Amino acid sequence: MDERTYTADAEPGDHVTVAGWVHEVRDLGGIAFLILRDKSGKIQVKFEKDEMDEELVETGLGVHRESVISVTGGVEEEERAPTGVEMLPESLDVLNEADAELPLDPSGKVDADLSTRLDNRTLDLRKKEVQAIFEIRAEVLRAVRDYFRSIGSTEINTPKIVATGTEGGTELFPITYFGEEAFMNQSPQLFKQLMVGSGLERVFEVGPIFRAEEHNTPRHLNEATMIDFESAFIDHEEAMDVCEGTLKAAYEAVEENCEAELDLLGYDDFGTPDGDFPRLTYEEAIERINATGELDEQLVYGDDLSTEAERALGDDVGGHYFITDWPSEIKPFYIQDYEDDPTTSKGFDLMHPRMELVSGGQREHRYGALVEGFEQQGLDPEQFDYYTKMFKYGMPPHAGWAYGVERLVMTMLGLENIREAVLFPRDRQRLSP
Amino acid sequence: MDERTYTADAEPGDHVTVAGWVHEVRDLGGIAFLILRDKSGKIQVKFEKDEMDEELVETGLGVHRESVISVTGGVEEEERAPTGVEMLPESLDVLNEADAELPLDPSGKVDADLSTRLDNRTLDLRKKEVQAIFEIRAEVLRAVRDYFRSIGSTEINTPKIVATGTEGGTELFPITYFGEEAFMNQSPQLFKQLMVGSGLERVFEVGPIFRAEEHNTPRHLNEATMIDFESAFIDHEEAMDVCEGTLKAAYEAVEENCEAELDLLGYDDFGTPDGDFPRLTYEEAIERINATGELDEQLVYGDDLSTEAERALGDDVGGHYFITDWPSEIKPFYIQDYEDDPTTSKGFDLMHPRMELVSGGQREHRYGALVEGFEQQGLDPEQFDYYTKMFKYGMPPHAGWAYGVERLVMTMLGLENIREAVLFPRDRQRLSP
Repeated sequence: MDERTYTADAEPGDHVTVAGWVHEVRDLGGIAFLILRDKSGKIQVKFEKDEMDEELVETGLGVHRESVISVTGGVEEEERAPTGVEMLPESLDVLNEADAELPLDPSGKVDADLSTRLDNRTLDLRKKEVQAIFEIRAEVLRAVRDYFRSIGSTEINTPKIVATGTEGGTELFPITYFGEEAFMNQSPQLFKQLMVGSGLERVFEVGPIFRAEEHNTPRHLNEATMIDFESAFIDHEEAMDVCEGTLKAAYEAVEENCEAELDLLGYDDFGTPDGDFPRLTYEEAIERINATGELDEQLVYGDDLSTEAERALGDDVGGHYFITDWPSEIKPFYIQDYEDDPTTSKGFDLMHPRMELVSGGQREHRYGALVEGFEQQGLDPEQFDYYTKMFKYGMPPHAGWAYGVERLVMTMLGLENIREAVLFPRDRQRLSP
Repeated sequence: MDERTYTADAEPGDHVTVAGWVHEVRDLGGIAFLILRDKSGKIQVKFEKDEMDEELVETGLGVHRESVISVTGGVEEEERAPTGVEMLPESLDVLNEADAELPLDPSGKVDADLSTRLDNRTLDLRKKEVQAIFEIRAEVLRAVRDYFRSIGSTEINTPKIVATGTEGGTELFPITYFGEEAFMNQSPQLFKQLMVGSGLERVFEVGPIFRAEEHNTPRHLNEATMIDFESAFIDHEEAMDVCEGTLKAAYEAVEENCEAELDLLGYDDFGTPDGDFPRLTYEEAIERINATGELDEQLVYGDDLSTEAERALGDDVGGHYFITDWPSEIKPFYIQDYEDDPTTSKGFDLMHPRMELVSGGQREHRYGALVEGFEQQGLDPEQFDYYTKMFKYGMPPHAGWAYGVERLVMTMLGLENIREAVLFPRDRQRLSP
């Protein structure tokens, strides 16, 4: 390619080559306009039929929408053009002609259902509003990683092919691994814990997780991108501080660096959270939910929170909040209980008013208690020996959490369906593209 | 946890709490020393038996090596201490006692074979030299991502569960996906190409790839972390520029930000590449290899380069270099050929003197030629319809490449085995931990 200028950088007086997609062609008779679109925006290309090379005009006006072209010419100020400038083409190359019929209209003028959009993500992502979601998603990942590094956390990658699932159970996709049965990992939980016992002490990972759950809802995925954090020598309160810190860092970064994207998505007030996230104990949460009167039946201690209960509390609180001090029996066995109250766990959830975002807690770091937990869960501790045995060789107290970037982006941008926040979602029906 | 100070931050005159692992206890009679180790370094804790609380002394000197403890006390200057300071303990908590017998000696005084080390990665990573590799690996990822962002590339995540492999073929791990056959993805190739045709134009991904290759060598893994780049509107030459840019950025960042780690690993001169990487055509490469006289048999045009051939050329060039203009028949079908010479492809490899690092090229963006390529490869284009059909709707010219972070770290640090650069490697024998 010759030196190419983004349309957004083309200034009056420049002589440039721009390349992109034919967004629209409007033929007004003596003159005609071709709108060329690239990553950065759009530019109007003006054809003056009587004054320009015939072949050039014919090529430019005959090319199908969404074809890829390259145009060279001068840039002039033009008040009536959408961006205030227009190009007068001197040459035009058709780099790849598109079919006349498209399965999806990238101009967004014709609505398409989500399934058609996901089948044609390439075209779907030519819509600036869709592109904006994924630019924001990338910015969220950048901001979260930077935050982790600012607190001395080391990035790790742990294996996705594993011999046993994190919590055993049935929600695993089986793999054939050189003749052996293996699984796709449902969480880096055990591996990140092994690493806080190493010299790294404090680690994070951003990577895929796989869950063979059969539900098919607007907020579940069978493959998601998880942000995992785990640190030695912190407790669940400090883990919540870090969690809150990453979330605020993500919102702040998006507000600061994604102004154009937020504009496109129609945000006047983006709503970066300010102030500390309230931390309600499970008991307080239940009382508040019952007090809303929104539920048909009053909750009692030990109940898990239904979607309706979460919604009622979310509306009541009105922003992000933590729920702490869960009954031990409804939290995973690897979460530590309070020493003075073994029926209450040091697990926590971070809630967005719309849904649960984060699960975390202080972990059980004592070998005996951990092995007991496996047994109570009905799991064979022998199978997890590669993990539990390290707890005999100096495992520090530690805490951590995980959240999916898709749920974060979904709640941040108010998306109706979590599939809007994934390029190529995987669910029960969807395995391709 | 109470406020904790890293050992490296403890200054004479401070009163601090440090927490970490018992690295060593030396009892000299009237006085004894406990060396406490944490992420940041080590500190000497001095016990004066006659002057200190008897229980404190007994606990401190009786605790097993690699136990996790927390010590509070004053810090004093002490020339004879390894770090120039020592602590006088006032209180000491044993947070988690280690077994007396360890499967691996984290002090590194007793050698362990790689398999034992990988079985006990938690202990293995308490060795500063091992920890250093993974701190450097994390810095490499940071630097490469920052470089990508500096050239306007958007981070993406593509699915790891797929209906068909990138190049078809047999080197795929099969999954059972809700009763359907699926595979773990061997490369984001097809997905990243779909994204350069979207509004994103220029993308990168850092994520796992899975290859069911049966070889078991010091430089192959069955699960690796791949750095993928792809961009619209660039050719193979520009793709090589970006590739070279990321590599130099990684070396520079490590040299600048990982001084302590490089010291630990014994580097006087790290060898950040300077100057442009030479770009040899395949024909030039063959001539140079033949001229070295290192090979028993002369290479002829069309031969792939054996490991010995790569070594001979690597020694001859003495640094990183590209090989371009490969015969089309030994490059994947999705690499574009020269228009004026369809037997020569726009594929390239980036070589380190020790081994191949990167594979890349300009891609075939024309629908007809792409479908023909699938057929010539013996693949059914119908199966890849989700991918090929997007080439009918305005796929721009594009190019890209991929390299594994493990090979990069391995060559950067001169590691003998690629497994040294992965926390939990996966190979034919190793599925756990």
